[in-house]
Amino acid sequence: MTVNEKALELHKEWNGKLDTTPKCSVKSREALSLAYTPGVAEPCRVIAKDKEAAYQYTIKSNTVAVVSDGSAVLGLGNIGPYAAMPVMEGKAVLFKEFGGINAFPICLDTQDTEEIIKTIVNIAPAFGGINLEDISAPRCFEIEERLKQLLDIPVFHDDQHGTAIVVLAGVINALKVVGKQKEDCKVVVNGAGSAGIAITKLLLSYGFPNIIMCDKSGILSKNSSDLNWKQKEMMEVTNRSNVTGTLAEALKGADIFIGVSAPNIVTKEMVASMNQDAILFAMANPVPEIMPDEALLAGAKVVGTGRSDFPNQVNNVVAFPGIFKGALEGRASQITEEMKLAAALAIAGLVKEEDLSPTNIMPEAFDPQVAKVVSEAVKAHIPC
Amino acid sequence: MTVNEKALELHKEWNGKLDTTPKCSVKSREALSLAYTPGVAEPCRVIAKDKEAAYQYTIKSNTVAVVSDGSAVLGLGNIGPYAAMPVMEGKAVLFKEFGGINAFPICLDTQDTEEIIKTIVNIAPAFGGINLEDISAPRCFEIEERLKQLLDIPVFHDDQHGTAIVVLAGVINALKVVGKQKEDCKVVVNGAGSAGIAITKLLLSYGFPNIIMCDKSGILSKNSSDLNWKQKEMMEVTNRSNVTGTLAEALKGADIFIGVSAPNIVTKEMVASMNQDAILFAMANPVPEIMPDEALLAGAKVVGTGRSDFPNQVNNVVAFPGIFKGALEGRASQITEEMKLAAALAIAGLVKEEDLSPTNIMPEAFDPQVAKVVSEAVKAHIPC
Repeated sequence: MTVNEKALELHKEWNGKLDTTPKCSVKSREALSLAYTPGVAEPCRVIAKDKEAAYQYTIKSNTVAVVSDGSAVLGLGNIGPYAAMPVMEGKAVLFKEFGGINAFPICLDTQDTEEIIKTIVNIAPAFGGINLEDISAPRCFEIEERLKQLLDIPVFHDDQHGTAIVVLAGVINALKVVGKQKEDCKVVVNGAGSAGIAITKLLLSYGFPNIIMCDKSGILSKNSSDLNWKQKEMMEVTNRSNVTGTLAEALKGADIFIGVSAPNIVTKEMVASMNQDAILFAMANPVPEIMPDEALLAGAKVVGTGRSDFPNQVNNVVAFPGIFKGALEGRASQITEEMKLAAALAIAGLVKEEDLSPTNIMPEAFDPQVAKVVSEAVKAHIPC
Repeated sequence: MTVNEKALELHKEWNGKLDTTPKCSVKSREALSLAYTPGVAEPCRVIAKDKEAAYQYTIKSNTVAVVSDGSAVLGLGNIGPYAAMPVMEGKAVLFKEFGGINAFPICLDTQDTEEIIKTIVNIAPAFGGINLEDISAPRCFEIEERLKQLLDIPVFHDDQHGTAIVVLAGVINALKVVGKQKEDCKVVVNGAGSAGIAITKLLLSYGFPNIIMCDKSGILSKNSSDLNWKQKEMMEVTNRSNVTGTLAEALKGADIFIGVSAPNIVTKEMVASMNQDAILFAMANPVPEIMPDEALLAGAKVVGTGRSDFPNQVNNVVAFPGIFKGALEGRASQITEEMKLAAALAIAGLVKEEDLSPTNIMPEAFDPQVAKVVSEAVKAHIPC
């Protein structure tokens, strides 16, 4: 039986991957009178006087909505809200298992930006945070930015920031392995959608001065046609010399390649043209931009992918559970750039200096320490 | 410590009455590859081809949204979505404990009818049913009716139909106790909000020919001013002789009084003016329209209330868990009038003929048989 067949069979057996489970009893008159009427009226009255009390008396303090419109699910594309459910349920399971956070899947039967924003604002009272997931670019940028303005709870598009944080963590450790400084590095990010843009922004925040973004038509510059509004914004802070050309041309002399793009589009020749001790994160899934063994043969020093069957897996699961755990515990109203940088440094720090090697730059995804360490770092960087 | 103090303390301790609990493991590489990527893509693909498959592979088949805008919560009034949360969480707990149904509270940060409808339609994909709760009249009627047209899953406003079903069940058994036929009975329903109107409609469906509705200004007739659109609709099917007057005048010669109104508004004199072997359901909470002992002294034969400390408690918990269980198991697209009548008869039937008495017309709320019997009756009446 293949993984796909097994997965399908199991999903049928589970018939939904999530249960809602009472934390209180209602099976006697007395219990019912405390958890439900008439006793329940008392916490209601207290919250009616002070909305903040919802964090004490309801699920809000530890519950996240996993929200998608099904427009960009995994590599499957725009499959809609019903077909997106298994992914969002899975994500909710990850929140609970790795972060101890209750999470519920909300799959939206609309792909209209304004309706999505309104719907999420309307259902926000039950939730302590909103995790956006698998929403196509560039709508995802507007939806997240508007929600951050409208809501007083953290809003986090994991495909953007979760990915960016884990990539930065990997890059930080890879630089230690090759002994280079971020200030001296030329970085090429291939893929200019939600992940590529968020990675670029976080690398800039961290202090990489020289980043070039590419997409399937080559280097993105101020001369590029068809840039969306978010990509245009990025042209103000990347590609300072406004060079043009192909991905192959961009990679000449580059120190770091980060691919969130398509299978097999990086050749051995391109890797060979990069600077010495090149670092590659080839994260197209399931087939990376270049296979690790080829990249290493062509002269790369550190290679990461999105896959669990190669070393250096770049896996969001080391980021989002701890980030939300920290944000919820610290009652953050937003997840700021500083909190993201702190998370990346914490994730990088989970690999001890003496254990760092070209094939060991990422912490183990299943290490229960990860969410704890990340959440503490995030909590320590919540603005007052 | 009072019930209120104890309830508040417990709500703080629980810090939310509901957990989300995984039904699958993700804590090894292999488990993660089946419940999440890459395996999860397979059920996604199957559902993308056939939306119906969501019932096999996701939580939809057994998950209900408990939705409120906080506009009419318990006796507390319009306390808003945050303060409504403890009630909706409690309701979700009841769904699970009595019906085995997963339920999640959705409290809406809007009281605009159109926005409420749109929001519920937008979040519907994850859910197999929508339980509306504590939404003020007459908006609740439009919201429910429009949602029934827009959605292909059951929509059920429990304050209306749950209450109506349990009242009808009680009335059916009370009639057996007093040996009267519905065709001969004059019924007075006091309270013309969501519950009063729904009770009246279901009693009409069951076959009571003669019902008079009252509210705080007395008998509702075609001459009444300030009727809302729903109350106007009711004037076509009740009060056929279009009489006018006070509640006291309505009660003269009445066989059944049903109160969903206000404390202490029925006097002993009014009860004495009713027909022989009068039946009263005085369900104002916590203080009924008349206390049972007074009503009995004044000549009533059967008295029910909403309280657990008197006989004949009218409690929705004997209805909604079984109704949704039956509707979900039978994949009903709506909860029809026939299904409601079947539920009422099933609830009534749970009290054996030989056990019926003036103080024993309702089944025990905590009897685990209740939801099973009700769900089977409901399932048997789902239209093909």
